[in-house]
Amino acid sequence: MKIAVSLALALSAATLAPPASAQFAKAEDAIKYRQSALTVLGTHFGRLGAMANGRAPYDAAIAAADADVVAIAARLPWHAFGPGTDTGRPTAARPEIWKEQATFKDRGEKMQAEVAKLVPAAKSGNLNQLKAAFGPAAQSCKACHDDFRKK
Amino acid sequence: MKIAVSLALALSAATLAPPASAQFAKAEDAIKYRQSALTVLGTHFGRLGAMANGRAPYDAAIAAADADVVAIAARLPWHAFGPGTDTGRPTAARPEIWKEQATFKDRGEKMQAEVAKLVPAAKSGNLNQLKAAFGPAAQSCKACHDDFRKK
Repeated sequence: MKIAVSLALALSAATLAPPASAQFAKAEDAIKYRQSALTVLGTHFGRLGAMANGRAPYDAAIAAADADVVAIAARLPWHAFGPGTDTGRPTAARPEIWKEQATFKDRGEKMQAEVAKLVPAAKSGNLNQLKAAFGPAAQSCKACHDDFRKK
Repeated sequence: MKIAVSLALALSAATLAPPASAQFAKAEDAIKYRQSALTVLGTHFGRLGAMANGRAPYDAAIAAADADVVAIAARLPWHAFGPGTDTGRPTAARPEIWKEQATFKDRGEKMQAEVAKLVPAAKSGNLNQLKAAFGPAAQSCKACHDDFRKK
């Protein structure tokens, strides 16, 4: 499991390279895919948050499984924001995503870097380590949502 | 070590065990989550199929990343089929899921076992190994869809 996850983290960058046109038949498919990846990401991130904020008991094994899913899911949405995927299905993606590509890319990379830190923190067995990693990770989500997601 | 590993596996399986009520605030959330996990799974599985069937060039690194996502995503939907999640949002899930739990669980476990074989096959660098693993994996998806997904 850990090996598979590490390999995915190491290799999945390769799947982010091709434009959406090469990966999705229709813009609608790209939008549905990125929304799905973000739903999975948000669900497991929310569970880590419940532990970090004391709304759920901290269990290192459960937290580790959630963090592994979060780290994988965090890699997925980006290649589905390709040219022409701003419309085709209802989406909260703001046009700024395609006008400020460098900023959007930077926000996405910062988010992936922060959530990657959740994996060792979640597995540490030390709730304070999970709390310390969760705050910056949550901020990295918010930073992108504030500028690039419709209110 | 073996004990630690088995224990870790047993505990991480615990994330799949709790009823939806313990993991999702509303049935609607559980349905949206499982649909999202299956969309991510299907997207990356489809990319492996394109390589296996010669519609896309075989690239071991890309195939490996897709297979890793498939293997992780294949573990996710099941805990979102808990009691009371048969309605709450449009869903293709058939009532038989909740009437034939043992069969549904068995189909899910068979699917996870088959897609797990895609990971080493995809990474092998040998397209024939990917083809050999893809067929049974696709059959394991179809077997569940045939009985438990609305046409």
